Amino acid sequence: MATEVAAGPDWQAWAAARRAEIEDVLSSRLPALPADDDPGRLIEAMRYSLLAPGKRLRPVLALAAAEAAGDFRDAGVLVAASTVELVHCYSLIHDDLPAMDDDDFRRGKPSNHKVFGEAMAILAGDGLLTLAFEWLADAGQRSGRPAAFGRAALALARGAGAAGMVRGQARDLGAPPPTSFEQLERLHAEKTGALFRAAVEIGAHASGASPEDAAALARFGDAYGIAFQHADDLDDADHPEHAARARQQMTALLTRATAALDSLREPGRAGALRALATALGNKTP
Amino acid sequence: MATEVAAGPDWQAWAAARRAEIEDVLSSRLPALPADDDPGRLIEAMRYSLLAPGKRLRPVLALAAAEAAGDFRDAGVLVAASTVELVHCYSLIHDDLPAMDDDDFRRGKPSNHKVFGEAMAILAGDGLLTLAFEWLADAGQRSGRPAAFGRAALALARGAGAAGMVRGQARDLGAPPPTSFEQLERLHAEKTGALFRAAVEIGAHASGASPEDAAALARFGDAYGIAFQHADDLDDADHPEHAARARQQMTALLTRATAALDSLREPGRAGALRALATALGNKTP
Repeated sequence: MATEVAAGPDWQAWAAARRAEIEDVLSSRLPALPADDDPGRLIEAMRYSLLAPGKRLRPVLALAAAEAAGDFRDAGVLVAASTVELVHCYSLIHDDLPAMDDDDFRRGKPSNHKVFGEAMAILAGDGLLTLAFEWLADAGQRSGRPAAFGRAALALARGAGAAGMVRGQARDLGAPPPTSFEQLERLHAEKTGALFRAAVEIGAHASGASPEDAAALARFGDAYGIAFQHADDLDDADHPEHAARARQQMTALLTRATAALDSLREPGRAGALRALATALGNKTP
Repeated sequence: MATEVAAGPDWQAWAAARRAEIEDVLSSRLPALPADDDPGRLIEAMRYSLLAPGKRLRPVLALAAAEAAGDFRDAGVLVAASTVELVHCYSLIHDDLPAMDDDDFRRGKPSNHKVFGEAMAILAGDGLLTLAFEWLADAGQRSGRPAAFGRAALALARGAGAAGMVRGQARDLGAPPPTSFEQLERLHAEKTGALFRAAVEIGAHASGASPEDAAALARFGDAYGIAFQHADDLDDADHPEHAARARQQMTALLTRATAALDSLREPGRAGALRALATALGNKTP
């Protein structure tokens, strides 16, 4: 099928091209301000974390979903995909704060509050979160498809908010640590999985996927997101007792994820998503 | 004119009825969870600040704008108006944090982080901000008017974000204090005015106001928002040198605000907005 550009050996090139597009959107839509027009160095702080080198996995996932089910080349789709990175980045800045995980480094660089101070790090996070919804609403107006981008905003808010990622953070910081594998997986689903699912849903909605395709892609995102966190646990010293179970469960979740793709209207277009699932499954501790 | 229910002596009753509706929306749409399903007491923390007694001035303003120019009784309008309170409340929680203004009390009660800890206060704020955009997107889908609620979301994001309220916060915390009256007024416009303007725009867009009426209402919101902060300065010991000028400028801004209402398609429907402007103008130090 002509659109299956992302499967097999072309996958790396496809993902690299998408990452470059995402970097361009992030940098150009949040331009640097002259120092005397950037009070408190707020924009500089937002750009410092947002433009730090990263895999951009969540927006790439969103674009892979858009390719699988919709009009992947609409300019608004790229903007919509980028909003997931804004939200991911805000969550990292707030997570690193002294009152939260208290991390001095992120991606090999001093964390945001170590450079700009705690107050500005809180505000930079607030600004990035708000910007995500500004971009989605703006894309909805410009594209003339406000309903589609409204569905994307709803998916993002649900995945990122107090029933999703923020709930996972609250559980991680404020509730007893998980003792069973099931409790650990619930934490993964909230803290990490919810935003992965939202990424896939955003790609689907923004690209105009049918309701059936969007639902199938959401099932993929759900399973992929939890599998991603299990993969992370394979080399996580915090939960060594769960490592074997995590490997097993990761495999089962990835099987479920790819099975969801078979129910798409054109399963052959899901090459990029299949490649992402394969890459995750090949991860070794 | 039949719709002019809010002018004159009926104003107090009108505003009280709107406040009661807003309270009901806030409480019922963010229901308490059983303690064992509220990890970290996140939802309890969000409700603690959101449901603390308040004037609900911003959502009342949004509803007054909706009455002036649109279909004020659409259920989505009430939800949209309430989202401004979610954003106002998040900003208060984050402002009170030790790294920001370090306030132990808010509205006569211990501030959020004094009760729930800093980490949960950060997350409660994040959750409330995200919830605002969830409610707007949800109302857009349910009402079948996603373009109108998309415009409301755009206005909220612009007013609340790094070009509006968050920029004002960054200026207040990270830039030299204002020395001239003009600098003080710019700070007011960003820190307070931008969200007032957004409130009026949200009411206009969500209720289906025409572009011309929405623009006139935005001019009202702009001027009213800055005047509101000048009124606050009348009894603010921080800037005694500016008190006389603030009184003068407040009067000029309120004149400009009410003049904007004269260009509405049906100026007689703006009784509630005029009453709000009058009440502010009558404020004594």
